[in-house]
Amino acid sequence: MKADPDRVLRDLYHLRKIGTYKSGVHRPTLSQDDITARKWLAGQLADIGHETCIDGVANVFGRAPGAGPHVLCGSHLESQNHAGWLDGALGVVYALEAARVAASDNQLVGRGVDVIAFADEEGHFSGDFSFLGSESFVGEISEEQIDAATDRSGRGTLREMLAKQELDGRQRVSMEAGRYCGFLEAHIEQGDRLESAGRGIGVVTSIVAIWQYRITATGFQNHAGTTTMKSRRDAGRALMQVWSAIEASFPTVCGPDSVWTVGRVTLQPGQPSIIPGQAEMVFQFRDADPDNLNRMHDALTRLTREVDAASPCALELEVLAQSSPAHMAKGPKDALQDAAQQWAPDHYSIMPSGAGHDAQVIARHIPSGMMFVPSIGGISHHWSENTSDSDIALGAQVYVQAVLNLLAANSNG
Amino acid sequence: MKADPDRVLRDLYHLRKIGTYKSGVHRPTLSQDDITARKWLAGQLADIGHETCIDGVANVFGRAPGAGPHVLCGSHLESQNHAGWLDGALGVVYALEAARVAASDNQLVGRGVDVIAFADEEGHFSGDFSFLGSESFVGEISEEQIDAATDRSGRGTLREMLAKQELDGRQRVSMEAGRYCGFLEAHIEQGDRLESAGRGIGVVTSIVAIWQYRITATGFQNHAGTTTMKSRRDAGRALMQVWSAIEASFPTVCGPDSVWTVGRVTLQPGQPSIIPGQAEMVFQFRDADPDNLNRMHDALTRLTREVDAASPCALELEVLAQSSPAHMAKGPKDALQDAAQQWAPDHYSIMPSGAGHDAQVIARHIPSGMMFVPSIGGISHHWSENTSDSDIALGAQVYVQAVLNLLAANSNG
Repeated sequence: MKADPDRVLRDLYHLRKIGTYKSGVHRPTLSQDDITARKWLAGQLADIGHETCIDGVANVFGRAPGAGPHVLCGSHLESQNHAGWLDGALGVVYALEAARVAASDNQLVGRGVDVIAFADEEGHFSGDFSFLGSESFVGEISEEQIDAATDRSGRGTLREMLAKQELDGRQRVSMEAGRYCGFLEAHIEQGDRLESAGRGIGVVTSIVAIWQYRITATGFQNHAGTTTMKSRRDAGRALMQVWSAIEASFPTVCGPDSVWTVGRVTLQPGQPSIIPGQAEMVFQFRDADPDNLNRMHDALTRLTREVDAASPCALELEVLAQSSPAHMAKGPKDALQDAAQQWAPDHYSIMPSGAGHDAQVIARHIPSGMMFVPSIGGISHHWSENTSDSDIALGAQVYVQAVLNLLAANSNG
Repeated sequence: MKADPDRVLRDLYHLRKIGTYKSGVHRPTLSQDDITARKWLAGQLADIGHETCIDGVANVFGRAPGAGPHVLCGSHLESQNHAGWLDGALGVVYALEAARVAASDNQLVGRGVDVIAFADEEGHFSGDFSFLGSESFVGEISEEQIDAATDRSGRGTLREMLAKQELDGRQRVSMEAGRYCGFLEAHIEQGDRLESAGRGIGVVTSIVAIWQYRITATGFQNHAGTTTMKSRRDAGRALMQVWSAIEASFPTVCGPDSVWTVGRVTLQPGQPSIIPGQAEMVFQFRDADPDNLNRMHDALTRLTREVDAASPCALELEVLAQSSPAHMAKGPKDALQDAAQQWAPDHYSIMPSGAGHDAQVIARHIPSGMMFVPSIGGISHHWSENTSDSDIALGAQVYVQAVLNLLAANSNG
């Protein structure tokens, strides 16, 4: 038994028609198009005999019949605003394909594939959680946290948006303890490592931790013409000195796969003729290795202290987030690697994931694995995001094979 | 004849009551409080026999009787938003005091002091001009430029705001060629040079030029987790490299009084998890010496080119403004220095002005001089801006004496 690449591509093309934006899609969580896509998925799962529902946070869940063992497969259906057609949808369609293949395989008596499309992996709603759908599924989100969540674009509260789609008040699906021998998520890479290496498949070792900080400099706001260089306390300049020191120092303390980014800088009051009295930047770094994370954290602390001591401004370093890396489990990882070796011998990479995924939540509860297909030009979160049809087809074969491998390895019979 | 410091302080305290904000004032151009202040000034000038008007851009002008020669004296009455009580008002009240003293001096037959309060030196209205009131007075602003000007805080167009105060359509007062032997403006220093040197009076040599630039870096927007350090084209980082190079290099090319400032930095899209694809900063430097200005310009051009060549981003340097320094004329400068030596021997500084003033416009047409009084703590454009009463009193004596010196030096008799 193997995947049907034509069926996979047909499904992906169908989803691309729901909320089309240029060559991508605009399908934010709980938009009408998002609901249309979720209902389509629920229908497909019902067609193969799964017990299906869209739950109280818009997770789509399809439960396979049979005594087990079962593999949980899935990703997410909503998109970033005006973004790509494959981010999320690819993993959901692969999961659906795996469920179809398993359902039609007479050899797999009782064994099967549950499919889930997690709600809002893309974080359209902000609240005291990281991944709404997957954290709800594993029981890490309370009703109070859902009460407090709101849409980042101002469309309303999460409750209001759920009520509008007649989902609020529905039961939330909970993971059934002991049901799963593993979770597998496929996703586009969103970077250019596979493309650069000329590989078609990525077997993920771990999902990196993100450590994020706010660095604030406090000086004294004053007139940019009448204040001598000697007497000014320029918060912007002090902040730039920290930034410059980071870029000079981090290459000597980072690991081979570390990344770090200054994504936001604000000078107050932000006027050309006023010396900034306050300046702030948001800085993050990512790595899967706690030693690398700790070395970068120590360097950042030291650099900030040094500028604080040397400049006429006060520097402050505030931790915004320090997540833990999520390591993929041996069973699912082996199932993926064996499948890759079968379908794409020596054409796959063993690599970390630099982006966050629902798999990092599920990995806290079920042995989990992740698989990547190449992103053309490394582009994602943009409507021009793409993957070649042949890579999509190869990915479907490897993914379905990995699911079958995992079911076989965990067979009771 | 000399100034009456009590009368000067009484007038300043009176103006502070018009639009009071904490210990300062909030009196933006063409606000009700601004008009109240202008009408008060017009009344004071009429009281001493000046032919007075508030003109079609809200300049208040009081024309002294007599055949001349005449000195033009003045500054501005409006304030920055929620700012200090002396910025502008001090120079207007000194001018009024000089006009009163001259009007009551029987020795000065025919000689006199015209007083002007220029509109919107603080630039509440943006348009294709730098100083609305003074540029209107010297004939450098057309009706079309006034048509196009709008309030920066969104209160409306300049025409609408003038019409609301029944000023639109009034004639604009024009400088009468040949009438003046000089223009004198007094102002708070807005810096801390006088205070640091323990001096009570500043005699201004020149008003610095402001050269202002937009520096833009263009890279490629991408995912901050999945894009390796090697393959990223981070526009923010490239911009920081220019900024860092400026701060390292400018001390070696600047003059002793040069100042430079990065007042605004923007990273696009400004999200913590997205590598900036575009980054921009507004950079300015100021100096009165063209050699220093040119050296700094050359250094900036070179540094930007170097980062453009060395980084994976494209750097662009755009000139936003390159004004000329305004040199104060010998006659008014000598009149001020002699007056300072008389009233405050060896208690004055000869210094440039780092801020822009109406005097730089008037200096293009009339021999001009400027005088500073100390700013406590160097603070300005803030409600806590202040100058001691004794420094205000001393400044009034020096200013009035300088006006008398200038009238005497230009006497026909």
